[in-house]
Amino acid sequence: MQAEIITVGTEILLGQILNTNVKFLSEQLASLGINLYFNTTVGDNKDRLKQALAIASDRADLVILTGGLGPTADDLTKESLAEFLQLPLVVVPEELNKIKSLYHKTGHKWAENNIKQCAFIPNSYILTNKVGSAPGMALKFENTAFVVLPGPPKEMTCMFLNYAVPWIKNTFNCEVSDMLYSKILKFTGIGEPSLEVLLADLFEVQTEITLALYAKTGEIQLRITTRAENKEDFERKISPVLTEIKKRTIPYLFGENEIIFTEAVAQLLLQKNLKISTAESCTGGMLAQYFTSIPGSSGFFLGSVVSYANNIKEQVLGVSSDLLEKHGAVSREVGSAMAERIRVLTGSDLGIGVTGIAGPSGGTQQKPVGLVYIALATPDKTICNECHFNGDREMIRLRSVDKALYLTWKYLKNILD
Amino acid sequence: MQAEIITVGTEILLGQILNTNVKFLSEQLASLGINLYFNTTVGDNKDRLKQALAIASDRADLVILTGGLGPTADDLTKESLAEFLQLPLVVVPEELNKIKSLYHKTGHKWAENNIKQCAFIPNSYILTNKVGSAPGMALKFENTAFVVLPGPPKEMTCMFLNYAVPWIKNTFNCEVSDMLYSKILKFTGIGEPSLEVLLADLFEVQTEITLALYAKTGEIQLRITTRAENKEDFERKISPVLTEIKKRTIPYLFGENEIIFTEAVAQLLLQKNLKISTAESCTGGMLAQYFTSIPGSSGFFLGSVVSYANNIKEQVLGVSSDLLEKHGAVSREVGSAMAERIRVLTGSDLGIGVTGIAGPSGGTQQKPVGLVYIALATPDKTICNECHFNGDREMIRLRSVDKALYLTWKYLKNILD
Repeated sequence: MQAEIITVGTEILLGQILNTNVKFLSEQLASLGINLYFNTTVGDNKDRLKQALAIASDRADLVILTGGLGPTADDLTKESLAEFLQLPLVVVPEELNKIKSLYHKTGHKWAENNIKQCAFIPNSYILTNKVGSAPGMALKFENTAFVVLPGPPKEMTCMFLNYAVPWIKNTFNCEVSDMLYSKILKFTGIGEPSLEVLLADLFEVQTEITLALYAKTGEIQLRITTRAENKEDFERKISPVLTEIKKRTIPYLFGENEIIFTEAVAQLLLQKNLKISTAESCTGGMLAQYFTSIPGSSGFFLGSVVSYANNIKEQVLGVSSDLLEKHGAVSREVGSAMAERIRVLTGSDLGIGVTGIAGPSGGTQQKPVGLVYIALATPDKTICNECHFNGDREMIRLRSVDKALYLTWKYLKNILD
Repeated sequence: MQAEIITVGTEILLGQILNTNVKFLSEQLASLGINLYFNTTVGDNKDRLKQALAIASDRADLVILTGGLGPTADDLTKESLAEFLQLPLVVVPEELNKIKSLYHKTGHKWAENNIKQCAFIPNSYILTNKVGSAPGMALKFENTAFVVLPGPPKEMTCMFLNYAVPWIKNTFNCEVSDMLYSKILKFTGIGEPSLEVLLADLFEVQTEITLALYAKTGEIQLRITTRAENKEDFERKISPVLTEIKKRTIPYLFGENEIIFTEAVAQLLLQKNLKISTAESCTGGMLAQYFTSIPGSSGFFLGSVVSYANNIKEQVLGVSSDLLEKHGAVSREVGSAMAERIRVLTGSDLGIGVTGIAGPSGGTQQKPVGLVYIALATPDKTICNECHFNGDREMIRLRSVDKALYLTWKYLKNILD
């Protein structure tokens, strides 16, 4: 069974609003086990909407339309659908009464153009709008089912979940039984191509299970998807491939589904009852901000010194002026000293030091933009990584934070090289 | 001239990501005066993508594709376009060298599947990717121009603005003359409804000029739009209304167009040759991170102490233990002392202190979640604001940062109440 979404609204094609409806409906269709192959966005224009309807109804069993149900002249969705199907629109008196009493209750002035909200194709199923005024409409015509929903996200989601889904399930009875389930595995410290190579044969063997990789800033996601009767059936089906993936990706796999990497690090710190603190130069507080974004961060994070100016490195952190003069602020020695000093200063178990050149200016031939030293001081030893990052200032800072978190995570997992 | 956007990615049709690229491209096309009538989203599937290309190239002069340029097997955009146009894809050695040296520099392992990122349709224009690895491609074939962009928003926007726009302007020379121009004014410290009331009569009088308000986190934007022959003509047309708006909004208007509020504060600090430093508790480094996100921030920002644990407030910042015991860490007195101490400690002209309860736990009846003290220490005096913010942890932290910046901005503008 195939569905297609047509979103209607000139405001979307002018970039005035972000189309969040498609994300919601896509997720819902996936969980219903309905394939979605196309989404088309079209402006408030009858001819172009009819053109989109012709294409969509030709290739889909279910066409979902959102937007253009309001009272104003540029709301044309039902009108276009009716013309396309060569069917009339007829005012339904009960709906007109409902909408009039709604206006009365809210104290809004009644305007005659509201009547068009109460006109529907005869014999279609009227979808109640519990959140706003314009009702929706669902009908099957020849081989295609059409579901017409309002544009405002609150109205659309409420109507879809409460009225459209039951109608769809009923109309396509046997076809939406097995639902699509998925699990996301999250990786860091490895690029997408290398991860694909590591898992290549698994991608090929799977028949009923789909594996898909996505690169996000600072992490790679692997989505494992398959149809299943229920959650338990899903877990059972994916268990062999999941075990194999986990075995191969120990140094990179940090969690599942909604978790973000900072949370994974935080959980390990809390489990091991370790406190951490940071001394930051080029990341300028970003690492501290990541740690403190986690609720309950006072359980593992003590504080930070953002030693942006050199004299702060000396006077607040206590990095020796000899070291600064001899090696420069951006050096392995100063990065390590920053990590060690913040550890002592705050009395934490672990200290992170980050010093580098985020650019755009400040780089030299010996020490170019993107050079960052990331150090972790532990009770036993201090490790310092020299990194060369690409990208603009923001990207270099983000990558420095990711790398510092990764170094900490590897230490906590006892898998430091 | 008509354009059409094809967004490629199964992850969009599964509802895993929100399609923000279309909003950006739609805005850009509108400002170029190019009509956008359709946007189609299609999954990572060659046949369906070719189907979408057939429909789009039939009705548009310019087809913009985003997504599917990566190294993995499900990245199929260039392959589909080449098949659709019955043209080959050929590896360009210079691009291959570039990408290899990029991998070498970042220390990522080279994987052979990266080669496909360097294959292009012969004689097409290669669009440089300054932010990521996969280059884009632009070409005109028969009556249709195709612009192929990567999917990750940072890469896409950078490539579009720097390389695709000049190519489009060049390719469609005469057709993008009658342009829509707009200027954005940016406000802070005032809500959208209050700003609307302040400017209500101006909204009504304008005929050819459109005024539109948008609320964003921490700022309100007013977009002034009109058609004009050129930039000078535009400035002349909007001049009267612009002058009137500026007159009415002095305590809130911080800048125009791309500027962000932190930059506005930074510019004032640099103009006045003043240095600033921060002492942060609940914002946990976020304020320092904002300041240091500005290129050249070493010219005005000295450093920060993130005194998350109480003993850091005492031992590193030097806030007296008496004060902490008597008033508690979240108090007007401690907020002020933090601002004063960081000012002395770093030798800066201005010091900001932020202490509060970001939640979700840690609140009491006397000191509920959302209570934040924000202090600014200057050479003459210390000002401390008691704030009560709504929202979750992240929102309270963001609002605290905005408020701290606003307090600093008002001081620098000499408009403190």
